[in-house]
Amino acid sequence: MLTLYYAAHTCSLATHIVLEEVGADYSTARIDFAKTEQRSPAYLKVNPKGRVPALVTDRGILTETPAMLVFVAQSFPAAQLSPMDDPFLFAEIQAFNSYLCSTLHINHAHRMRGPRWVDADDAHSIAALQRKVPESVGACFDLIERDMLKGPWVIGARYTICDPYLFTLLEADGVDPARIPRVIDHRRRVAERAATKRAIAQELA
Amino acid sequence: MLTLYYAAHTCSLATHIVLEEVGADYSTARIDFAKTEQRSPAYLKVNPKGRVPALVTDRGILTETPAMLVFVAQSFPAAQLSPMDDPFLFAEIQAFNSYLCSTLHINHAHRMRGPRWVDADDAHSIAALQRKVPESVGACFDLIERDMLKGPWVIGARYTICDPYLFTLLEADGVDPARIPRVIDHRRRVAERAATKRAIAQELA
Repeated sequence: MLTLYYAAHTCSLATHIVLEEVGADYSTARIDFAKTEQRSPAYLKVNPKGRVPALVTDRGILTETPAMLVFVAQSFPAAQLSPMDDPFLFAEIQAFNSYLCSTLHINHAHRMRGPRWVDADDAHSIAALQRKVPESVGACFDLIERDMLKGPWVIGARYTICDPYLFTLLEADGVDPARIPRVIDHRRRVAERAATKRAIAQELA
Repeated sequence: MLTLYYAAHTCSLATHIVLEEVGADYSTARIDFAKTEQRSPAYLKVNPKGRVPALVTDRGILTETPAMLVFVAQSFPAAQLSPMDDPFLFAEIQAFNSYLCSTLHINHAHRMRGPRWVDADDAHSIAALQRKVPESVGACFDLIERDMLKGPWVIGARYTICDPYLFTLLEADGVDPARIPRVIDHRRRVAERAATKRAIAQELA
């Protein structure tokens, strides 16, 4: 039995969608960022990083979206969401998700999470970080639009763990949708999947 | 045949070490950051992200250290640097490397790469980012020291692709070594390995 710790409107949705895609038997535990529950002593015992998502498994607790996505895909191989028998193809999937976590998501985080990188009371620098986000996030989406999104799904004909992760990271960061039509179209197709609808409905219930 | 594009004193050393560990037949191509060769038209054809490392393979070009490390390990299974038949253990390896690329390395990058996140001519904000690095990088190493590094190697008894990656990210970021003795000891043990010495000697030649 798996338990997903998640917060609404965060990248934990990617793992939630994949749990639905594979038909896993799982439960969820909501963490309320408005109450800073991610910093509560109880949650820090689950994830000392004080972040979501975290996945409780029979073997222990996993964190970090790219790792969790592969774990769920590998645990439910029938769904074929992450081919691992082809090292190059698997590396392409990993490279895409690694770019999302270490570059796109990080650039996005500078809009709301400036105090990770400058003092919280330094209003000038906090505002400077926020102002740069449309440019830095926009550059990521330009690269995805032009070079990385093969279509119709991220790696081509096959829906994989890359698709719901990209879906969760297209947010209101000031990037003109007209500039990234293929990304917008991809988002629409992920949103239409039954698993995506179920995961979102559960999080917003 | 594999070709590793690398720059000295960067995280590309992790993949370089692993290529030596597995006994791969590979060549290297040096990118000189002092000449901003990572932004040259020739290199942008190799890696449109304008970063190192990149790995040219018979099937195409790979980027992103976590993906490349798994690719090399999976391509040379005899070296057993990344067990993939155990989904949970593999996920722990992936979670560790994902944390390095998306949190530790990112925090470190704010010391030298501030213009990624604020305007380059905003001296106040650039300095504010630099000042925060000892705290943000220090928090990562505290977590690694206390919770993540099992010892003697990252995941325990077995040397894996986590170890050379951690090795490359312990830099002069203002973190007191006395605070992280287990990390320092780990660094010494990675440095003593023959593959590590060969990779470093090649990069500094």
